[in-house]
Amino acid sequence: MIKVAVLGYGVVGSGVVSLLNKNAKHISKNAGQDIQVKYILDIREFPNDPFEKIFVNDFETIIHDPEVTIVVEAIGGTGIAYDYTQRCLQAGKHVITSNKELVAEHGGELMRHAQERDVNFLFEASVGGGIPVIRPLVQCMTANIIGEIYGILNGTTNYILTNMEQNGTSFSDALLEAQQKGYAEADPTADIEGFDTCRKICILSSLAFGQHISPNQVPTEGIKNVKTSDMHYASTLGYEIKLLGRARAVNDKAAVYVAPHLVNKDNLLSIVNYAMNGVVVRGNAVGDVVLCGAGAGKLPTASAVVADIIDAVKHLHTRRWIGWSQDNVNITIDPNQLESAWYIKTDASKEKVEHEFGTVLFAENKNKTPTTSVGKEYNETAFITGVMNGNKVDELLSRGIKALSRFRVLGDH
Amino acid sequence: MIKVAVLGYGVVGSGVVSLLNKNAKHISKNAGQDIQVKYILDIREFPNDPFEKIFVNDFETIIHDPEVTIVVEAIGGTGIAYDYTQRCLQAGKHVITSNKELVAEHGGELMRHAQERDVNFLFEASVGGGIPVIRPLVQCMTANIIGEIYGILNGTTNYILTNMEQNGTSFSDALLEAQQKGYAEADPTADIEGFDTCRKICILSSLAFGQHISPNQVPTEGIKNVKTSDMHYASTLGYEIKLLGRARAVNDKAAVYVAPHLVNKDNLLSIVNYAMNGVVVRGNAVGDVVLCGAGAGKLPTASAVVADIIDAVKHLHTRRWIGWSQDNVNITIDPNQLESAWYIKTDASKEKVEHEFGTVLFAENKNKTPTTSVGKEYNETAFITGVMNGNKVDELLSRGIKALSRFRVLGDH
Repeated sequence: MIKVAVLGYGVVGSGVVSLLNKNAKHISKNAGQDIQVKYILDIREFPNDPFEKIFVNDFETIIHDPEVTIVVEAIGGTGIAYDYTQRCLQAGKHVITSNKELVAEHGGELMRHAQERDVNFLFEASVGGGIPVIRPLVQCMTANIIGEIYGILNGTTNYILTNMEQNGTSFSDALLEAQQKGYAEADPTADIEGFDTCRKICILSSLAFGQHISPNQVPTEGIKNVKTSDMHYASTLGYEIKLLGRARAVNDKAAVYVAPHLVNKDNLLSIVNYAMNGVVVRGNAVGDVVLCGAGAGKLPTASAVVADIIDAVKHLHTRRWIGWSQDNVNITIDPNQLESAWYIKTDASKEKVEHEFGTVLFAENKNKTPTTSVGKEYNETAFITGVMNGNKVDELLSRGIKALSRFRVLGDH
Repeated sequence: MIKVAVLGYGVVGSGVVSLLNKNAKHISKNAGQDIQVKYILDIREFPNDPFEKIFVNDFETIIHDPEVTIVVEAIGGTGIAYDYTQRCLQAGKHVITSNKELVAEHGGELMRHAQERDVNFLFEASVGGGIPVIRPLVQCMTANIIGEIYGILNGTTNYILTNMEQNGTSFSDALLEAQQKGYAEADPTADIEGFDTCRKICILSSLAFGQHISPNQVPTEGIKNVKTSDMHYASTLGYEIKLLGRARAVNDKAAVYVAPHLVNKDNLLSIVNYAMNGVVVRGNAVGDVVLCGAGAGKLPTASAVVADIIDAVKHLHTRRWIGWSQDNVNITIDPNQLESAWYIKTDASKEKVEHEFGTVLFAENKNKTPTTSVGKEYNETAFITGVMNGNKVDELLSRGIKALSRFRVLGDH
């Protein structure tokens, strides 16, 4: 019998307790022994909750109970979550977390604590919610040198973009609807501005390239600049617009960034819609592997957390190494160096565009009437450039072409 | 330093040797020690091969060498591959295989031998080639009770179907082209008739449901009955036709079968095209997880085999349990009991169809001229029925409606 403590009884914490209960027999069989939640830590009160009797509000009860072998950190953020995780690891307890902010900011240090005390620090749920991503990457693809990882890593922004694309809803209306339906939080900044995606691509690229890549090294653009008219033009050209976190190996370095991209309709990610997430990992032996599913939500996230608990139970004394070097070498390079085709929307004439950019692919504007509230839409010119890096685009635009929108076209350059 | 022997130097065996060499430094780092191929067993001669010096043609050299810790079985089939695998496991050597026929037919018994000698018997490459499938299923989704697994598990048939769909190529021409391009073997029976898909869905469903499901328990229909006209009708209705292996839990039993299906264009598998494979696993916590990539080929398959080697190296003394019960209980039920909508093409009139089937969805026939060599195509009626089980379809068709084609529509019934 393994005793577990769950820190925080929000969506993730309550999901973990609920799943351990719901699939108890199945989970015991797969773990090789019973798993019991001994404590739930929360400062809030949950009268009439079926687990009411095991609530505690003092972390000291947990940290000083030698019976507690595994701790699930489901508090979130990098405040007390960081403090408690560190103390648990130092006390020789295995820690499982779904907290991407914690792992992206302090992962290296926490891994070092885990290593010192020979315990597991596992975080499968921190990227892609319930989708198997981290183990497929570090375990199934371990024989591959990873060339690239990119993905739709945030359900809120994907929900908004899909709604804009499929129903012509404006960004602000789509955001409001996402909030009403519970897909977006009251303060949606972390999602909309791409910060959440940034943390997740940091974790994936750190694992793939073996060096810690920190959010402050990763240029991050959210979805505020995507208009429904851009989606219309992209669609006529055979693309969908998706917010991607992307990390691409360039010699011994990596270009890592977050931005909206035009994704070809042949690419599976182009139909990863609404709250779904999807990740593509490119290995030098296997080629592209695509992993998709529910990237968030109570039970999907709990699915990954409980899988980590089971893995920790099976590896109580032969710990699993899932992590990266603590060398603190910055391996990132400016993503503007990466070449690609680019989508640009401008109020400049086709003639002017061709004069500066040479041969481009113009989007047909089937709607002569404006599709959004953007003024003068019927005078817009949208096009896809040849392959060039971001600095070259800047230079060509500086010759008197005002970019109303500008997104990278995902491609294999 | 771990010494490995590779049995068979065909596509898979040579891929494994090549990948161990190509990514040697990376692999040593991830395995925690160097991995050296000590022997390659093949009865053929490979003059001027860079590994010429380590070829042996007598299995006894390998089985009696205590330095050989891990054996890669890449012979194929269930003849000497079975014999050698059994002997290696009994001799206390870890065995890695990509041989789906071996695992589907004799997996249970081989797992028992492995268990008795406390060694690993791993077979990630046997399903989905390089796509991470088995570990995501048994490890990342281990907290889930699996309700369903289905997938495009054979690249040859998917290549043919995609070619028919996208280029209007007839089945026989598409097969010929697949053979010329090396996607189909000279004797394509195992692929075309669905046997290969059958073995793979057997392995997946045995893992998911914990009991051995044997190929002879699985009704299997290949792709010979799929016409380009069916694809045309399916497309106008919003579907692609894909050969699926499918296993669905029904109470404590499972309906497992192989057949062409109409797959909705919203489903990611609908754009898993040409030689790509894709698998959907439905868990009761995580929902649907989709895993896609190269399902075959030299390096993709080697990617999965070498990952298994690395896992075995890391678990030399604490073996990993990936397998199923040896109870030999038959848990399969007749898939005709499963309800779904059905696609039917007939020469009966629309009136007759509606008289027997009630309200159906007719496919518009935009091509009035025949699209294939099937006669009287312009008199065909294609439609999708309401939801009913296979026996009910049989009964309704027996009332004077001749089905020229009949496929299940994949749906959540």
